[in-house]
Amino acid sequence: MTDGEQLPALLRVLKGERVDPPPIWIMRQAGRYLPEYRELRKRAKTFMDFCYSPALATEAVLQPLRRFPLDAAILFSDILVVPDALGRKVWFVEGEGPRLEPLIGEEVWRFDEPERALQRLQPVYEAVERIKRELDSATPLIGFCGAPWTVATYMLQGEGGDKDRARRCAYERPADVDRLLDTLAEASARHLAEQVRAGADCVQIFESWAEGLPFPLFERLILRPTEKLMTRLRELGVTAPIIGFPRGAGSALGEYAKRLRLEAIGLDTSVAPHPDLPAQLAVQGNLDPQLLVCGGAALEHGVRHVIDSFRNRPHIFNLGHGITPDATPENLSRLVSLVKGAA
Amino acid sequence: MTDGEQLPALLRVLKGERVDPPPIWIMRQAGRYLPEYRELRKRAKTFMDFCYSPALATEAVLQPLRRFPLDAAILFSDILVVPDALGRKVWFVEGEGPRLEPLIGEEVWRFDEPERALQRLQPVYEAVERIKRELDSATPLIGFCGAPWTVATYMLQGEGGDKDRARRCAYERPADVDRLLDTLAEASARHLAEQVRAGADCVQIFESWAEGLPFPLFERLILRPTEKLMTRLRELGVTAPIIGFPRGAGSALGEYAKRLRLEAIGLDTSVAPHPDLPAQLAVQGNLDPQLLVCGGAALEHGVRHVIDSFRNRPHIFNLGHGITPDATPENLSRLVSLVKGAA
Repeated sequence: MTDGEQLPALLRVLKGERVDPPPIWIMRQAGRYLPEYRELRKRAKTFMDFCYSPALATEAVLQPLRRFPLDAAILFSDILVVPDALGRKVWFVEGEGPRLEPLIGEEVWRFDEPERALQRLQPVYEAVERIKRELDSATPLIGFCGAPWTVATYMLQGEGGDKDRARRCAYERPADVDRLLDTLAEASARHLAEQVRAGADCVQIFESWAEGLPFPLFERLILRPTEKLMTRLRELGVTAPIIGFPRGAGSALGEYAKRLRLEAIGLDTSVAPHPDLPAQLAVQGNLDPQLLVCGGAALEHGVRHVIDSFRNRPHIFNLGHGITPDATPENLSRLVSLVKGAA
Repeated sequence: MTDGEQLPALLRVLKGERVDPPPIWIMRQAGRYLPEYRELRKRAKTFMDFCYSPALATEAVLQPLRRFPLDAAILFSDILVVPDALGRKVWFVEGEGPRLEPLIGEEVWRFDEPERALQRLQPVYEAVERIKRELDSATPLIGFCGAPWTVATYMLQGEGGDKDRARRCAYERPADVDRLLDTLAEASARHLAEQVRAGADCVQIFESWAEGLPFPLFERLILRPTEKLMTRLRELGVTAPIIGFPRGAGSALGEYAKRLRLEAIGLDTSVAPHPDLPAQLAVQGNLDPQLLVCGGAALEHGVRHVIDSFRNRPHIFNLGHGITPDATPENLSRLVSLVKGAA
């Protein structure tokens, strides 16, 4: 940014400023709903190869920005690069999702040492540098990682879906699971720090699987490890704003906001208007992603409802969950117009 | 009940009284975790046949009561008997769950007229009568139905699981979906009224799929139809207490409690201690069902936490979701002892 230029809207909101109309970006804005992404994807054999190719990841990030006047870019990567770097190899089964060798069933859990392991993620940081070179100064770049429990769930079960086995493991092998979460907190803090060093302007912590936890486990598996991650990130000298996204936190949402020193909190689709959150805390969300499949009057009403719900506080417009592959670019285009015209 | 006998603990709590220790029953207490149930199940060809056999349903209800000093019985049936009676045939795929011909895809939705349709459910009411004859006066019987949106989700999609298609249909065919919910509210009210007439002492409305709805849909698909169901039930002369169980309501839980005139609200596993609910409203829940798989110290801590969380209000001890087939009878026995000794 040159002197006198205004800070981008997203970063102003992350400083606690109310901006009208709210800045907008979309979770998974680079992805399968775009035909040009589906074409680009063919240029790598596996999804992990794609993530580890700075050139392909950069191109994926830029694709949606060419179509839509979005207010931020987000790194193209996957939350599972961290376990992959820690020595728990990750692969994707077409149409099903990620797979790992499940930790459940292994008697002794061994991981590579976080600091050294993360050297394997150099291609990710190289992608960040490339993306920053391509972006104009008005478009900030969001880095990200998965929160420890969400990543641990995949590592424990070897796959996503139903989280019962991971939760049971947290009861049955508490010391092992807590150690795993510590390892992930440390590795994730370093991973975010490297993204910021490479040029990311702010970061988001995706807690995709906060749902269904009894409160004592929410405390132990979500709050404590995320707090540890954030403390380590600050110790590593990172001052970039942090967005926490505890999808499915339900009635524990307020506790999450109170406990963690976030610059913004991501709200999932189900969070009701006027949530009980600190008045100055920026919120991000929370349009139903299905409205980008439906379009029409339902989309218009939905956008209006979200805008009105958070009119009294700093707000970043987004979906309540990632955009789905069956959403249409036309509906996203309409959404961005509606938000930009909603001041 | 003879003169001078005290009202059973469950019914006292449903009148707003605090009882120590809290009465306890378990969602799906009659079911696959019991070897004697798995044996009994073999005596009917299909699961729906089992549900429609008064003798088998009665025996299933009595089985857990012979093992554990539980404070209530619950009718053995399925929430999908209502669509089945309305002419949308239901069958179960082994290891997967229920199936119906999905309404999505059919241009015109036709249902049999609720009043006449429910005559097909006579075997259910006959089961209620039989069960009541077998129960002692200290053990009340809970009747139940699925809430309109939960049942509609199965009818729309033809199966459970991911609810995206049902939600999309609610956006795309609002008039059809609202009419379906009205039909279900009417049929479900009549279904509950018949259960009470046959002897049920109170009823529970299972809203198993309240989760993930944006608030405007929560209002339209959950609150309005459930309110309609309850109003109709009262119009039909039913005064029995009503327990509403909006699983996954998350931040809309308070609104659900405020809007509906319930005698108790069921809390799912994720509801944090000291929820923001009317002080006199009885709560039911919410131990993690996985603790009946794990057992041990984790079970003890979990029980203590639930007891302490709701110590200041009328409380019915239960799980936060149904008991799973891999739970052990020994752990349930231990749970009941812990609760009974927790005064």
